[in-house]
Amino acid sequence: MNFLEERIVKDGVVKEGNVLKVDSFLNHQMDIKLFDQMGEAFKEKFREKNINKILTIEASGIGIACIVAKHFDVPVVFAKKAKSINLDGEMYTAEVESFTHKTKNQIIVAKKFLTAEDRILIIDDFLANGCALQGLIQLVQAAGAEVCGIGIAIEKGFQPGGQIIRNLGYQLESLAIVESMNGETGEIVFRSQE
Amino acid sequence: MNFLEERIVKDGVVKEGNVLKVDSFLNHQMDIKLFDQMGEAFKEKFREKNINKILTIEASGIGIACIVAKHFDVPVVFAKKAKSINLDGEMYTAEVESFTHKTKNQIIVAKKFLTAEDRILIIDDFLANGCALQGLIQLVQAAGAEVCGIGIAIEKGFQPGGQIIRNLGYQLESLAIVESMNGETGEIVFRSQE
Repeated sequence: MNFLEERIVKDGVVKEGNVLKVDSFLNHQMDIKLFDQMGEAFKEKFREKNINKILTIEASGIGIACIVAKHFDVPVVFAKKAKSINLDGEMYTAEVESFTHKTKNQIIVAKKFLTAEDRILIIDDFLANGCALQGLIQLVQAAGAEVCGIGIAIEKGFQPGGQIIRNLGYQLESLAIVESMNGETGEIVFRSQE
Repeated sequence: MNFLEERIVKDGVVKEGNVLKVDSFLNHQMDIKLFDQMGEAFKEKFREKNINKILTIEASGIGIACIVAKHFDVPVVFAKKAKSINLDGEMYTAEVESFTHKTKNQIIVAKKFLTAEDRILIIDDFLANGCALQGLIQLVQAAGAEVCGIGIAIEKGFQPGGQIIRNLGYQLESLAIVESMNGETGEIVFRSQE
């Protein structure tokens, strides 16, 4: 097991309905030293990609993205979730439908912060069905920029998001891929990535 | 002028209605090197406070808080904004009324992440009327923890938030205090903090 898988086993809580709670270190309370290790790991994986900007989405992606950005020495842009806003033509927008909640949401980024020259690393905390991620890819493509890599902390390998994104040809690196979880015993099985 | 005031003059945009846009480096695109300088500055100001945790609020506070946290070697907890949720008794909640938007919002933190032993540094990007900040202080007090300091990037000195918080006895340090702005000329006057 790598450092993140070990931490998930130690402090993650499996709940009924394939819910994995990692709010004590990842997405409510945030362990900055752990994020730093994640930054090191992503730097190793995307070292050759000439990344010049990191893109994430509010809210829980922002913390990881900022610490990862220190390792790449690049700025971070975060996409905002919008219900219904007056778009003044200065925004790239993507509509994403939540598989889980059956709701549609817009995510937006100001055009001036994504350009055709950008080599983007997308960072997020979780990947399950991949709706948010598909929206972020849309935004990058709308700008004519390139998605040079995607770094995820925890992927739910039993949901389709990861496979879809890999099938599309993107280099998607998840530091921990949960293959299965048992809500009764709390057992977590990770996909081997040796 | 300090490093942040210089950056505001260089890249901030003053708009009509006392709006200061700093989305190119602070709260949409985020300049991580600048955040690092802010972390250094806050460390200097709160060095003696034995801070063991940083509290912020989603979304735009999170990035700054995480980079500042590296300088204090402590975890970050971010309060979530909630419209109406099923509270299961495991959350501290504060109701805050937006002076600007006349709306009421709840902010919440899981009880397990704020304890009576905590010595909290509150970090946020903006302070104007101070509604969000008052809510964060409420949450810390509900937990019996101590607000040992408050670090703000940009304070609008012509709005009452800063004065209220200082009158309550808190050590509030804003790296830039805007005394006045001119929407026509774009001129920004900072409060001297020598």
